[in-house]
Amino acid sequence: MKVINLAEKFDLIGEHWSPRIVGQVNDTVVKLAKLKGEFVWHHHEMEDELFMVIKGRLKIRLADGELTLCEGELAVIPHGVEHCPVAEDEVHVLLLESASTVNTGTLVNDRTVDAGWI
Amino acid sequence: MKVINLAEKFDLIGEHWSPRIVGQVNDTVVKLAKLKGEFVWHHHEMEDELFMVIKGRLKIRLADGELTLCEGELAVIPHGVEHCPVAEDEVHVLLLESASTVNTGTLVNDRTVDAGWI
Repeated sequence: MKVINLAEKFDLIGEHWSPRIVGQVNDTVVKLAKLKGEFVWHHHEMEDELFMVIKGRLKIRLADGELTLCEGELAVIPHGVEHCPVAEDEVHVLLLESASTVNTGTLVNDRTVDAGWI
Repeated sequence: MKVINLAEKFDLIGEHWSPRIVGQVNDTVVKLAKLKGEFVWHHHEMEDELFMVIKGRLKIRLADGELTLCEGELAVIPHGVEHCPVAEDEVHVLLLESASTVNTGTLVNDRTVDAGWI
């Protein structure tokens, strides 16, 4: 059991769009990621995904609109929902998702990464 | 799908030690709670529990020591581990735990509450 300082963990992350695991609660993992630019449209077949903005402003494009999340705001994207995160400027985000969730959902492409622990 | 603003949700919470649900990710719920004073020693038989401090400073007493969590810090208390949260001054905390988790763990007493959605 240890105290995890989010700012210190973010300092360890260099690459954008490469979530890293900092904690696990039952079968849910807590990931941190730095985002910048536009990701890819994707969905997760079975797994919901929570985005919580720690720093910056994140847009999540949806088929019928978009969400804008500022610091201290969160949203849950239910499984099956196509979405595309967009960070005009760098965003620090905390993600909650199943340990099995792949960042690009049902897609596997050059944006697909394995999340390791930091 | 909607944006959840943590500060606005905390404004809706009056009572201390009464977690309220603001989101669900698969079978994990996100709860917010205001804490002040000392809670009760308890553990959760099967469920891990994550504490993330949004405002203030939280101590979590353990059998062999204690953790101190400040703003932007989190810790996971694994299932089976006896713990007692203590907030000398008011703390705003975000909790991640199973939908089935009871605030007092295996105890049922006058501190036990059902968490409703806000």
